Amino acid sequence: MNEFCLIEQFFKPIATKRSDVVFGIGDDAACLEIPRGANFLISTDTLVGGNHFLSEWNPYDIACRAVMVNVSDMAAMAADPCWVTLALTLPEADPAWLKPFSQGLNDSLNKFNIALIGGDTTRGPLSITLTIAGLAPEGKAVKRDGAKPGDVILVSGQLGAAALAVKFLNDHSIPENDTAILMQKLIHPEPRVDLINCLRSYASAAIDISDGLSADLNHICVASGVGACLIENAIPVHPLLKKYLSEQAVDLALRGGDDYELCFTVPARLLEPLMNELKRANTLCYPIGEIESAQGLRIKAPDNTSKILKPEGYSHFS
Amino acid sequence: MNEFCLIEQFFKPIATKRSDVVFGIGDDAACLEIPRGANFLISTDTLVGGNHFLSEWNPYDIACRAVMVNVSDMAAMAADPCWVTLALTLPEADPAWLKPFSQGLNDSLNKFNIALIGGDTTRGPLSITLTIAGLAPEGKAVKRDGAKPGDVILVSGQLGAAALAVKFLNDHSIPENDTAILMQKLIHPEPRVDLINCLRSYASAAIDISDGLSADLNHICVASGVGACLIENAIPVHPLLKKYLSEQAVDLALRGGDDYELCFTVPARLLEPLMNELKRANTLCYPIGEIESAQGLRIKAPDNTSKILKPEGYSHFS
Repeated sequence: MNEFCLIEQFFKPIATKRSDVVFGIGDDAACLEIPRGANFLISTDTLVGGNHFLSEWNPYDIACRAVMVNVSDMAAMAADPCWVTLALTLPEADPAWLKPFSQGLNDSLNKFNIALIGGDTTRGPLSITLTIAGLAPEGKAVKRDGAKPGDVILVSGQLGAAALAVKFLNDHSIPENDTAILMQKLIHPEPRVDLINCLRSYASAAIDISDGLSADLNHICVASGVGACLIENAIPVHPLLKKYLSEQAVDLALRGGDDYELCFTVPARLLEPLMNELKRANTLCYPIGEIESAQGLRIKAPDNTSKILKPEGYSHFS
Repeated sequence: MNEFCLIEQFFKPIATKRSDVVFGIGDDAACLEIPRGANFLISTDTLVGGNHFLSEWNPYDIACRAVMVNVSDMAAMAADPCWVTLALTLPEADPAWLKPFSQGLNDSLNKFNIALIGGDTTRGPLSITLTIAGLAPEGKAVKRDGAKPGDVILVSGQLGAAALAVKFLNDHSIPENDTAILMQKLIHPEPRVDLINCLRSYASAAIDISDGLSADLNHICVASGVGACLIENAIPVHPLLKKYLSEQAVDLALRGGDDYELCFTVPARLLEPLMNELKRANTLCYPIGEIESAQGLRIKAPDNTSKILKPEGYSHFS
């Protein structure tokens, strides 16, 4: 099976059509019509076999994960995801692998009305690079650099389950139903596109928690020239971390990556209207601390003593 | 050196600034302002170490080649290249490799006024995926599917030198100055951005010759539902192919990839004005045959007999 048959069979049929795609797969480039008054957001993420996923995972799941981590980048910017290109490097063109992979790609793109508009297939060690693009109303994308002293820091969900899944990958003593919950969090993160409108209305800064809360919050602080103080008791630690890690649970919630929840900041006066809007939408976000003018991260223990929080998290090449 | 220092040191300083970049590297996504009435073109190309380049090549050259093959996709669509994202997978974060790589990236992007707006760095086997985006006036991008019977087929330059360079990679009997010419063609292809305006005015279809003339012309024919007849004597075979290959020279010019010249079609009545315009611009393009209604490719020998031309070229996984 050569490159062209492979594209014909597995990628051209992927279904989502969008009226803003002038033309997609099949030329040297795809062509889009960008609506007036919109900002165009673009981001790229690579998943390397054996590093960001295990090659023995179901190809369906690998494709889903690749889409979700890219969609999360759009959600973090308060941009609606619209289009992706796929650069797929494969050791061999194996239809038994490609069929479930393209199915996973199809299903996860359809879920968000994202069109696959182009790509490149090459031979080499398994690696998947998606470039995702999306739209936000002009000036409404949310960056990392807008946090101000006094802003409330929030996270969008419970933390640490994906990191615990990685920790337990080879530990077969964990009950099956717990393993299933953890692996679901690792393999099928749910990007928080449901928060896009709230971010546009309320957030001063936002980031997705791909590297770990402390590392990603630190990115906001460095970009904004501020610091942050977290309340240890307020960190929404995933219940399975408490079950299996006891004292180290908070620590893993703070530095474990791969959760793809959002961390964002909101001016204090907007907290109440935000929480009311979230409540109406049946969504929960957790206020976990406050932006400070003094740089660096601190965390306040239940006894009200505070200590320095080192921004540790996942970093390639570290 | 971790991922963030690496980006700070080697990629953030890359110089080209464009006023249409609202913000670039440093957030979960970059943000662009797309002018009204423009079509947005986007394309992605991966270069895998040991496959599209040799890992021992100078990193400066590897970066240049990655940029050039992507720019060529924009030129083939008659789109002005504007922005790129870089997904770089590296076995290790070696400053001695990264410094010349980022320099090559900087120099080649600056040459075309292209801004580096984002990317991802990951650990794994050496691989470079660039996603390039550009602009064309609305409806002016040139696709593969517009060729009509009677259209003249042209190529933008001499063919086969890059393929000959690959053939001779391990042949040290070739004189040094010839090797230098061939390697220059392989490593530093010159994407034909100089033809973008002509394509917009005259071309009915276009493609870049990355897979080989016969394979890429066949893509135009299949997309357009037509066939083509080439004139063997008119194929601009690179002089070094004639020197080293004699009878097989035309064959390699027809199926050798990596030239990154353009193949395009022009309605017969527009050939003269096009040739005049090219002449005024001191540019040479070569009419090499004609589009026919009967499908398939043919080639006419000097004795006027014609035979079927099999569309062979480079294909991954074949």
